[in-house]
Amino acid sequence: MSKRHFLDHFLNPKSIALIGTVKEGWFFGGGVIIKDLFTFPYKGTIYPINPSLKETMGIKVFPNIKEVPGRIELAVIMTSYKYVPQVMRECGEKGVKAVVVVSDGFGEIGAEGRKRQDELVEIARSFKMRIIGPNTVGVVDNIKGVSTIPYEKGYDAIKKGSLSIISQTGIYGPQALPFDDYTFGINKIFDLGNMCDVNETDCLEYLEEDEDTKVISMYIENIKKGRAFIDVAKRVSKKKPVLCLKSGKSADAARAVASHTGSMAGDDMIYDGIFKQTGVVRVDEYEDLLDCAKAFIYQPLPKGNRLGIITLSGANSILTIDDAKRHGLVLADISEESKRQLNQINPLLGRNPVDLGPATAAFGLEIFNFYTRCIDIFMQDNNVDSIFVVLYATSILRPEYYREAFKAVSKKNTKPIVIWSYGTKERYNRELALIAEGYSIPHYITSPKAIKALGCMTKYARWIDSRA
Amino acid sequence: MSKRHFLDHFLNPKSIALIGTVKEGWFFGGGVIIKDLFTFPYKGTIYPINPSLKETMGIKVFPNIKEVPGRIELAVIMTSYKYVPQVMRECGEKGVKAVVVVSDGFGEIGAEGRKRQDELVEIARSFKMRIIGPNTVGVVDNIKGVSTIPYEKGYDAIKKGSLSIISQTGIYGPQALPFDDYTFGINKIFDLGNMCDVNETDCLEYLEEDEDTKVISMYIENIKKGRAFIDVAKRVSKKKPVLCLKSGKSADAARAVASHTGSMAGDDMIYDGIFKQTGVVRVDEYEDLLDCAKAFIYQPLPKGNRLGIITLSGANSILTIDDAKRHGLVLADISEESKRQLNQINPLLGRNPVDLGPATAAFGLEIFNFYTRCIDIFMQDNNVDSIFVVLYATSILRPEYYREAFKAVSKKNTKPIVIWSYGTKERYNRELALIAEGYSIPHYITSPKAIKALGCMTKYARWIDSRA
Repeated sequence: MSKRHFLDHFLNPKSIALIGTVKEGWFFGGGVIIKDLFTFPYKGTIYPINPSLKETMGIKVFPNIKEVPGRIELAVIMTSYKYVPQVMRECGEKGVKAVVVVSDGFGEIGAEGRKRQDELVEIARSFKMRIIGPNTVGVVDNIKGVSTIPYEKGYDAIKKGSLSIISQTGIYGPQALPFDDYTFGINKIFDLGNMCDVNETDCLEYLEEDEDTKVISMYIENIKKGRAFIDVAKRVSKKKPVLCLKSGKSADAARAVASHTGSMAGDDMIYDGIFKQTGVVRVDEYEDLLDCAKAFIYQPLPKGNRLGIITLSGANSILTIDDAKRHGLVLADISEESKRQLNQINPLLGRNPVDLGPATAAFGLEIFNFYTRCIDIFMQDNNVDSIFVVLYATSILRPEYYREAFKAVSKKNTKPIVIWSYGTKERYNRELALIAEGYSIPHYITSPKAIKALGCMTKYARWIDSRA
Repeated sequence: MSKRHFLDHFLNPKSIALIGTVKEGWFFGGGVIIKDLFTFPYKGTIYPINPSLKETMGIKVFPNIKEVPGRIELAVIMTSYKYVPQVMRECGEKGVKAVVVVSDGFGEIGAEGRKRQDELVEIARSFKMRIIGPNTVGVVDNIKGVSTIPYEKGYDAIKKGSLSIISQTGIYGPQALPFDDYTFGINKIFDLGNMCDVNETDCLEYLEEDEDTKVISMYIENIKKGRAFIDVAKRVSKKKPVLCLKSGKSADAARAVASHTGSMAGDDMIYDGIFKQTGVVRVDEYEDLLDCAKAFIYQPLPKGNRLGIITLSGANSILTIDDAKRHGLVLADISEESKRQLNQINPLLGRNPVDLGPATAAFGLEIFNFYTRCIDIFMQDNNVDSIFVVLYATSILRPEYYREAFKAVSKKNTKPIVIWSYGTKERYNRELALIAEGYSIPHYITSPKAIKALGCMTKYARWIDSRA
């Protein structure tokens, strides 16, 4: 980007003021932010602001923003709601460009709070400042080393990667999720809180041009300006997948939205329509924004909706076919050549699903060779668009054995492949998952979640093809 | 049970013959079964049968069943399908009462296999033997110390408990599931395989009278005799909850059923009708038979469908209300007294969902006291029938802190309560889960799974009330 986008003031500021509690060792406040800025590391200048401290974590603390000698690009306000308007005015006078208002007690608490929130917007406009929040944890730019998250997360760095998250809630932040345990990494996170100024469409447009972001996940409770969102989302989703979790389907839930971020959930059917016409892939569970995104991060897009299944369990085959239908996939009618090759391995195998189960006793520890051969056959079959593989993690079939198989598969990975494993210890499954994802093969904790991920990819691929 | 039920020959036999591979140290066969029978321990006599071994694991091996000096009550046949009819005849002549046919190559492989299977049934009838299988791993009686599971599971004992499983697949057996990692225990497991003789209704009827079984989970692909099932299921479900996963909803899946256990899936609508009129609670995912069962094992039944939510996240509240609707629950309209008491804790709290999130910074590490107080208020509120609690597992709010809270809650646990936690390390969630379930409070890996479990309990409670 040649011109500086207004969101750069939030994500890549030359200096950050932290206003409110800034003491070290407390689980909330500027002390947590400073620790993260040191660790990431952030290269700009940090100005802690608090009238009752002289110094924190080796940095000078200023009693007031006006006393700061240099320029301040971004301010993070963590005071009680009562002081926020006054602090914002001082920020404006100081020439601050961007403000993250962490404080709550605004639109989300009703009429009185909404009035207060409107006041913030007015102050910001008069000084040409932009606001993220209020009632937010703010932003992370994991490349620039910026974070405004004021809650202790309990791990150091956030793994770097290509997923960016836009959210109207804090629970996609690093203080809520084990980003250190995931194999894929995070690029940027926006928690928009009550969304009194900067909104989801602004962020989406920003991420459109962001080369480091390959996949976008959004959690929204409402869309402020439908037309603008549709225009932007349609454009962005042609360049990169956009997954969206929109909550508040039922009337009770819509009422709860009003008291969460002070917004109106709107008619769910309308949202369904918006997502369909913009190519945004709608998901329905909290974890989907990470789990389904993982498939997009690791795997190529499918060419169609025909699913090949390689399993160890007849019961799982049947359940999977039901799940596949639910997610717009059909059981692939595999080629005669595939049947021939599968039958050569074992006369029971020449059909889809390929059930390696009955032959397990005969295969023994050699079963991994059979897996890779079956996967290879499906990779070559033009009647198969995506592949679901079920593995068995146990003390005898240890994950180490799978390493070679995953390595071999990852070299010929021309179609999306996802796996689920069951096994006799939860830790065997976790070990297997880490090894698989080390070779970019996504692992899921349940079989339906794996199929849902393929369903999302298939839906998105169809959208992309229809625009080609 | 005063009279000996024919299934006692399978679950509590005085002697067991293991016919086929019986060598030690191999991951499949009689050697695995012997190891388990030693460990559990089984108190009866074990007869390994194999013409090419003299001894295995310190027990004499007989070349043929006819050479065994004592009586044989149960025989487990693990030979190639070719030898099964001959072995079964020998069993019949020897006076064997019950046969588990592990061998595959019968009804599940088509017309030829079905003929072979019919032959087994004829042989069994002529000798008044009963068959479980073929194409099965057989049975476990975790109280009597009996197992016919011929696959290595990688852990010693199966935790003892009150859940019994009836299944037309092996993947609910101890060789497929981490029964050692679960906090709840297992009582009996039946894998019925191709179900040529003993069927799901026989097992259900047996478990009706089994005092050790408190909850029954079933996986079925078809019901052989609808009328008999309806009569029995209606009766059993009045005494104890019966959960059922019926696969094969779609046409493709129904075809896959035919090639899994050689049975016909039938019209899914008919099954829905059967479950509704019998009070059997239908679930839709593999793990539900364990996850939902866990709620029944640990928690009392609800009196109605009004849900109280105590959370830390506004977004989760909204998603949960949507999930609740999907599972037949409604947001409880809490009493004025509850509102008053909640507002005394914090003026933001006096409504359902109770969102402790905004006040977290103020509560600090004291938050657990607030949790227990909120839960207590909901336990006392006659407008609340079940409770969902969201916890946050992080390095500062360590699971240890929850121990006291869970303990306090478990003492006043008069309504069903389930929890979900999110957190900054996967292991924090696991630790928290173990602690919670140590106090009989079921923990779920996703929020929708927790709500689904409450939904199942609510549905079952309504059935019980309607029969009262």
